[in-house]
Amino acid sequence: MAHVFTDLPGVFAHAVAASIKVQGLDLAFIYIPDAVACAGVFTRHAFKAASVIHTQKYCKKHQLKAVIINAGNANAVTGKQGEKDTKTLAKAVATYLGIKSYEVGVAATGIIGVPLPLSRIETALPILFEDPKKKNGAAVAEAILTTDLCCKQVWKERQIGKKNMVVAGITKGSGMIAPNMATTLGFLVTNVAIDYETLQVCLHRAIEDSYNMLSVDTDTSTSDMVLCFATGQYRFTKTDPAQLAQFQALLTDACIDLARQIAKDGEGATKTIEVHVEGAASLKDARMMAKQVIDSPLVKTAIHGGDPNWGRLVMALGKNPEIKLNPNKVSISIEGIDLVKQGQPRGVSRACLKKALEKIAIAITINCGLGDARATAWGCDLTKGYIDINTDYN
Amino acid sequence: MAHVFTDLPGVFAHAVAASIKVQGLDLAFIYIPDAVACAGVFTRHAFKAASVIHTQKYCKKHQLKAVIINAGNANAVTGKQGEKDTKTLAKAVATYLGIKSYEVGVAATGIIGVPLPLSRIETALPILFEDPKKKNGAAVAEAILTTDLCCKQVWKERQIGKKNMVVAGITKGSGMIAPNMATTLGFLVTNVAIDYETLQVCLHRAIEDSYNMLSVDTDTSTSDMVLCFATGQYRFTKTDPAQLAQFQALLTDACIDLARQIAKDGEGATKTIEVHVEGAASLKDARMMAKQVIDSPLVKTAIHGGDPNWGRLVMALGKNPEIKLNPNKVSISIEGIDLVKQGQPRGVSRACLKKALEKIAIAITINCGLGDARATAWGCDLTKGYIDINTDYN
Repeated sequence: MAHVFTDLPGVFAHAVAASIKVQGLDLAFIYIPDAVACAGVFTRHAFKAASVIHTQKYCKKHQLKAVIINAGNANAVTGKQGEKDTKTLAKAVATYLGIKSYEVGVAATGIIGVPLPLSRIETALPILFEDPKKKNGAAVAEAILTTDLCCKQVWKERQIGKKNMVVAGITKGSGMIAPNMATTLGFLVTNVAIDYETLQVCLHRAIEDSYNMLSVDTDTSTSDMVLCFATGQYRFTKTDPAQLAQFQALLTDACIDLARQIAKDGEGATKTIEVHVEGAASLKDARMMAKQVIDSPLVKTAIHGGDPNWGRLVMALGKNPEIKLNPNKVSISIEGIDLVKQGQPRGVSRACLKKALEKIAIAITINCGLGDARATAWGCDLTKGYIDINTDYN
Repeated sequence: MAHVFTDLPGVFAHAVAASIKVQGLDLAFIYIPDAVACAGVFTRHAFKAASVIHTQKYCKKHQLKAVIINAGNANAVTGKQGEKDTKTLAKAVATYLGIKSYEVGVAATGIIGVPLPLSRIETALPILFEDPKKKNGAAVAEAILTTDLCCKQVWKERQIGKKNMVVAGITKGSGMIAPNMATTLGFLVTNVAIDYETLQVCLHRAIEDSYNMLSVDTDTSTSDMVLCFATGQYRFTKTDPAQLAQFQALLTDACIDLARQIAKDGEGATKTIEVHVEGAASLKDARMMAKQVIDSPLVKTAIHGGDPNWGRLVMALGKNPEIKLNPNKVSISIEGIDLVKQGQPRGVSRACLKKALEKIAIAITINCGLGDARATAWGCDLTKGYIDINTDYN
């Protein structure tokens, strides 16, 4: 059976139903009493949720050992009451765990602008913390979901000598997904012995190539947060560049895995789209082009309908005049079929392209012929399902 | 009856059906034999259509007197053949009108990546130019349409003393609408006596506040072009700032009118959305925020469904960390109902908001409380109609 993140020694978690969502599990904690480091990446949204402000502050200043998470209410744009509720919640959790409230992170996801139902949460806390050493990771993976249709978990390990380096975690997200420096919610644990500063750098790098290259609908949440706790049980020499590189690769790999799971479960999605940009003049350009294509509603609807209207890929690729691009050097292929070679259309048959678009995972490769920079972005098609979900969310 | 742009003396136009589209009028010309100036604003897309490259070049260097327009095929990403076809077409039109081919602009809209059906166009040219002095503006307004459901025309005049200053024109566009320095196709005529340089500056300013603040779907065409011809019959002193300001106001007013008509006819649209941003720190910030809100699929779907989930407005407003914004100074209202005052939610009732969202034109006002800059953006809701149109366009 697949591993759950709480299979890692020293990692505890549990979830209950507190009636914040209409039904199901919606209140959870993760607790790593002997954490040696916790790094965090947070939304850069102007209206950061109270939970984001709280957790970002303590993540920088102190050593987080736990996080309390609720789904169904983002506690964002809730004014001064929202800030107060977050503090009250962190304090209550700290009391149950016998730690300081600055050691407790808070995360929330759900509707914006509605006050947090704190009394319902307070009623549920005694049951949630009945045994803080529960290892119920699967329940937590479920409790953090909102419009998601499935749980998103990852377990990556790498044997080095006799020891196993592990990165594991969970995430949620389906709509309002176009993270900027972070995404919706993600919680990772690792067994490496690493300090806060190094872990923070590694997590940032991993997020840049994973969550930040993911887009379901170009909209960015007020509540985005990814935390990574280290238990310190796998000792390695972080000054050894090879060992640190191995950890970075494992962490990035885990984050990409989670980001792809979000794309696959995008609101209303029936197909996933992966865009590889190569040969760009700069990494920034490569990332922007990959995201432009993944974000284009006309590309997304064409792929949904299996419509071989490949001109839309070109349209989406070239629309930003800030990006360096020479039309006569650009080559584009979809599912291995060459559409454009160095700016000249290849006259591919509609039937051939239509056949390729029947697949449920579509890969697009773009070579700009300018330099060495490359980037990959993940997304999904745009369907009536997305409209259905979002015309009546509230 | 409403005026058509060919009601202006010295402006001629006609359209025929050349089987470029499946049915209907699709080939048209506009001819101003005594034009004193023609200014143009063009797409900044990397893969400019052959027609854009041709017209932009001659608009700068020479005096355009005519434009040939086809709908149904954009002649974009058609390689060297596309360039050749554009030249052949301009030359043929010049022969029919007895002018030089560098006096003929070319405009095209429709599918990207499919060769122009030049022989069908050449067959239709003798009929189109049977009488080059036809004043059939209404037919041209129809011929330039693609997925549009209605013609888009404008006539603005202002009496100054005994003389009438006029700006009139037509436009098209419904999807792939998020212009950058220009939009899809727009053709304007004015009777003022103005030189190329001054007209170019005035047109740029007008486009910045109109077409460039319009978005149906964030996608930008390869074929965008707005031309403005001047017949020179209304003599005014362009060195008089007051007279020039009157002309600028009339031109901007005409462009805003056309841009709003495009938003109203957005693909699948059932409602229009107008976003006013006030009190921003800079004009650039004001424009970006207004466009972010108009572009957000979660705002667009909520308005479509009449879902009073106003938190999404805040989400869309704050998602770009490059924009200066203080959450505690922001006030937001929708259809005159205050949702947020200086960062604090007003606890507006769902029922009240739901009622307001039943309207088919929704106005959102955002005050940032930071400075004096303001901007307005126009857009529409996101519906299953958009998905239907774009999953099977080709």
